[in-house]
Amino acid sequence: MKNFKPYFAVIFTSTQTEDTQGYDEIAEKMELLAKQQNGYLGMDAARNDVGITVSYWESLEAIKNWKANTEHLFVQQKGRERWYNWYNVRVCKVEREYEFRKS
Amino acid sequence: MKNFKPYFAVIFTSTQTEDTQGYDEIAEKMELLAKQQNGYLGMDAARNDVGITVSYWESLEAIKNWKANTEHLFVQQKGRERWYNWYNVRVCKVEREYEFRKS
Repeated sequence: MKNFKPYFAVIFTSTQTEDTQGYDEIAEKMELLAKQQNGYLGMDAARNDVGITVSYWESLEAIKNWKANTEHLFVQQKGRERWYNWYNVRVCKVEREYEFRKS
Repeated sequence: MKNFKPYFAVIFTSTQTEDTQGYDEIAEKMELLAKQQNGYLGMDAARNDVGITVSYWESLEAIKNWKANTEHLFVQQKGRERWYNWYNVRVCKVEREYEFRKS
Protein backbone atom coordinates (compact mmCIF):
# COMPACT_ATOMS: atom_id res chain seq x y z
CA MET A 1 0.00 0.00 0.00
CA LYS A 2 1.44 3.36 -1.00
CA ASN A 3 2.20 5.95 1.64
CA PHE A 4 0.87 3.81 4.45
CA LYS A 5 2.53 4.88 7.64
CA PRO A 6 2.58 2.02 10.15
CA TYR A 7 1.18 2.74 13.56
CA PHE A 8 0.43 0.65 16.62
CA ALA A 9 -2.57 -0.99 18.24
CA VAL A 10 -3.05 -2.28 21.76
CA ILE A 11 -5.62 -5.07 21.89
CA PHE A 12 -6.97 -5.36 25.41
CA THR A 13 -9.31 -8.32 25.96
CA SER A 14 -10.84 -9.01 29.36
CA THR A 15 -13.48 -10.76 31.42
CA GLN A 16 -15.03 -8.97 34.36
CA THR A 17 -15.67 -10.00 37.94
CA GLU A 18 -19.15 -9.50 39.38
CA ASP A 19 -17.95 -6.33 41.09
CA THR A 20 -18.54 -3.80 38.32
CA GLN A 21 -19.21 -0.88 40.64
CA GLY A 22 -17.50 2.25 39.37
CA TYR A 23 -16.25 0.54 36.24
CA ASP A 24 -18.14 2.45 33.55
CA GLU A 25 -17.27 5.81 35.07
CA ILE A 26 -13.57 4.95 35.29
CA ALA A 27 -13.52 3.48 31.78
CA GLU A 28 -14.94 6.73 30.43
CA LYS A 29 -12.41 8.74 32.45
CA MET A 30 -9.55 6.60 31.11
CA GLU A 31 -10.71 7.18 27.55
CA LEU A 32 -10.67 10.94 28.11
CA LEU A 33 -7.23 10.67 29.69
CA ALA A 34 -5.88 8.54 26.82
CA LYS A 35 -7.11 11.17 24.35
CA GLN A 36 -4.86 13.71 26.03
CA GLN A 37 -1.76 11.52 25.62
CA ASN A 38 0.79 12.36 22.95
CA GLY A 39 0.55 9.96 20.04
CA TYR A 40 -3.01 8.82 20.76
CA LEU A 41 -4.89 8.07 17.53
CA GLY A 42 -8.19 6.53 18.57
CA MET A 43 -10.05 3.76 20.35
CA ASP A 44 -12.73 1.12 19.71
CA ALA A 45 -14.51 -0.81 22.47
CA ALA A 46 -17.27 -3.41 22.83
CA ARG A 47 -18.23 -5.94 25.48
CA ASN A 48 -20.39 -9.07 25.55
CA ASP A 49 -18.98 -12.24 27.14
CA VAL A 50 -15.55 -10.82 26.53
CA GLY A 51 -14.62 -7.14 26.44
CA ILE A 52 -12.39 -5.88 23.65
CA THR A 53 -10.80 -2.45 23.70
CA VAL A 54 -8.41 -1.56 20.92
CA SER A 55 -6.47 1.68 21.20
CA TYR A 56 -4.35 3.10 18.38
CA TRP A 57 -1.05 4.93 18.82
CA GLU A 58 1.60 6.62 16.71
CA SER A 59 4.53 4.83 18.35
CA LEU A 60 5.62 2.25 20.91
CA GLU A 61 6.94 5.18 22.95
CA ALA A 62 3.42 6.62 23.15
CA ILE A 63 2.09 3.24 24.36
CA LYS A 64 4.84 3.01 26.98
CA ASN A 65 4.02 6.50 28.24
CA TRP A 66 0.32 5.70 28.45
CA LYS A 67 1.02 2.49 30.37
CA ALA A 68 3.20 4.47 32.81
CA ASN A 69 0.73 7.36 33.27
CA THR A 70 0.30 7.78 37.02
CA GLU A 71 -3.48 7.93 37.04
CA HIS A 72 -3.68 5.04 34.59
CA LEU A 73 -1.29 2.95 36.75
CA PHE A 74 -3.60 3.45 39.70
CA VAL A 75 -6.59 2.29 37.62
CA GLN A 76 -4.65 -0.72 36.30
CA GLN A 77 -4.09 -1.78 39.91
CA LYS A 78 -7.78 -1.32 40.74
CA GLY A 79 -8.64 -3.36 37.65
CA ARG A 80 -6.55 -6.30 38.86
CA GLU A 81 -7.94 -6.05 42.37
CA ARG A 82 -11.60 -5.59 41.54
CA TRP A 83 -12.88 -5.49 37.98
CA TYR A 84 -11.07 -8.15 36.01
CA ASN A 85 -10.91 -11.92 36.37
CA TRP A 86 -8.63 -12.04 33.41
CA TYR A 87 -7.11 -9.77 30.83
CA ASN A 88 -4.68 -9.95 27.97
CA VAL A 89 -2.73 -7.11 26.39
CA ARG A 90 -1.30 -7.43 22.90
CA VAL A 91 0.94 -4.73 21.47
CA CYS A 92 0.75 -4.79 17.69
CA LYS A 93 2.14 -3.03 14.67
CA VAL A 94 -0.57 -2.21 12.13
CA GLU A 95 0.96 -3.20 8.81
CA ARG A 96 -1.92 -2.53 6.46
CA GLU A 97 -5.50 -1.43 6.55
CA TYR A 98 -8.52 -1.16 4.30
CA GLU A 99 -11.98 0.20 4.70
CA PHE A 100 -15.44 -0.27 3.23
CA ARG A 101 -18.16 2.38 3.39
CA LYS A 102 -21.59 1.89 1.92
CA SER A 103 -22.25 4.49 -0.76
CA MET B 1 10.34 -11.01 26.04
CA LYS B 2 12.13 -14.33 25.73
CA ASN B 3 10.97 -16.93 23.25
CA PHE B 4 8.03 -14.84 22.10
CA LYS B 5 7.13 -15.90 18.59
CA PRO B 6 5.40 -13.07 16.75
CA TYR B 7 2.08 -13.85 15.18
CA PHE B 8 -0.60 -11.83 13.44
CA ALA B 9 -3.94 -10.30 14.29
CA VAL B 10 -6.72 -9.06 12.03
CA ILE B 11 -8.78 -6.34 13.70
CA PHE B 12 -12.17 -6.15 12.01
CA THR B 13 -14.35 -3.25 13.22
CA SER B 14 -17.79 -2.65 11.75
CA THR B 15 -21.16 -1.00 12.03
CA GLN B 16 -24.25 -2.86 10.88
CA THR B 17 -27.17 -1.90 8.70
CA GLU B 18 -30.69 -2.50 9.97
CA ASP B 19 -30.88 -5.66 7.89
CA THR B 20 -29.36 -8.19 10.27
CA GLN B 21 -31.34 -11.17 8.96
CA GLY B 22 -29.14 -14.23 8.74
CA TYR B 23 -26.15 -12.42 10.21
CA ASP B 24 -25.69 -14.38 13.45
CA GLU B 25 -25.97 -17.72 11.72
CA ILE B 26 -23.42 -16.77 9.06
CA ALA B 27 -21.05 -15.25 11.65
CA GLU B 28 -21.09 -18.53 13.55
CA LYS B 29 -20.53 -20.48 10.35
CA MET B 30 -17.58 -18.25 9.43
CA GLU B 31 -16.01 -18.82 12.84
CA LEU B 32 -16.25 -22.59 12.34
CA LEU B 33 -14.80 -22.24 8.86
CA ALA B 34 -11.92 -20.04 10.11
CA LYS B 35 -11.08 -22.66 12.71
CA GLN B 36 -10.47 -25.15 9.93
CA GLN B 37 -7.98 -22.88 8.16
CA ASN B 38 -4.28 -23.60 8.40
CA GLY B 39 -2.55 -21.18 10.72
CA TYR B 40 -5.70 -20.15 12.63
CA LEU B 41 -4.92 -19.42 16.29
CA GLY B 42 -8.10 -17.99 17.77
CA MET B 43 -10.77 -15.28 17.73
CA ASP B 44 -12.39 -12.71 20.04
CA ALA B 45 -15.60 -10.87 19.24
CA ALA B 46 -17.96 -8.36 20.85
CA ARG B 47 -20.53 -5.89 19.56
CA ASN B 48 -22.25 -2.83 21.01
CA ASP B 49 -22.39 0.36 18.91
CA VAL B 50 -19.40 -0.95 17.05
CA GLY B 51 -18.55 -4.59 16.44
CA ILE B 52 -14.99 -5.75 16.98
CA THR B 53 -13.75 -9.15 15.83
CA VAL B 54 -10.09 -9.93 16.26
CA SER B 55 -8.75 -13.12 14.71
CA TYR B 56 -5.25 -14.45 15.33
CA TRP B 57 -3.05 -16.18 12.76
CA GLU B 58 0.37 -17.76 12.51
CA SER B 59 1.38 -15.92 9.36
CA LEU B 60 0.39 -13.33 6.76
CA GLU B 61 0.06 -16.24 4.34
CA ALA B 62 -2.64 -17.79 6.56
CA ILE B 63 -4.52 -14.46 6.58
CA LYS B 64 -4.27 -14.19 2.80
CA ASN B 65 -5.63 -17.72 2.38
CA TRP B 66 -8.51 -17.03 4.73
CA LYS B 67 -9.40 -13.83 2.87
CA ALA B 68 -9.39 -15.76 -0.42
CA ASN B 69 -11.42 -18.74 0.87
CA THR B 70 -14.27 -19.21 -1.62
CA GLU B 71 -17.07 -19.46 0.92
CA HIS B 72 -15.64 -16.56 2.89
CA LEU B 73 -15.39 -14.42 -0.28
CA PHE B 74 -19.08 -15.00 -0.90
CA VAL B 75 -19.91 -13.93 2.65
CA GLN B 76 -17.67 -10.84 2.36
CA GLN B 77 -19.72 -9.82 -0.67
CA LYS B 78 -23.00 -10.38 1.20
CA GLY B 79 -21.59 -8.34 4.08
CA ARG B 80 -20.95 -5.35 1.83
CA GLU B 81 -24.34 -5.65 0.16
CA ARG B 82 -26.48 -6.22 3.24
CA TRP B 83 -25.01 -6.32 6.73
CA TYR B 84 -22.42 -3.59 7.00
CA ASN B 85 -22.65 0.16 6.66
CA TRP B 86 -18.96 0.39 7.30
CA TYR B 87 -16.05 -1.79 8.15
CA ASN B 88 -12.33 -1.51 8.64
CA VAL B 89 -9.74 -4.27 8.46
CA ARG B 90 -6.34 -3.87 10.06
CA VAL B 91 -3.66 -6.50 9.58
CA CYS B 92 -1.24 -6.38 12.50
CA LYS B 93 1.89 -8.08 13.76
CA VAL B 94 1.61 -8.94 17.46
CA GLU B 95 4.96 -7.89 18.89
CA ARG B 96 4.44 -8.62 22.56
CA GLU B 97 1.76 -9.82 24.90
CA TYR B 98 1.07 -10.16 28.59
CA GLU B 99 -1.72 -11.61 30.61
CA PHE B 100 -3.29 -11.25 34.05
CA ARG B 101 -5.33 -13.96 35.70
CA LYS B 102 -6.88 -13.57 39.13
CA SER B 103 -5.51 -16.16 41.49
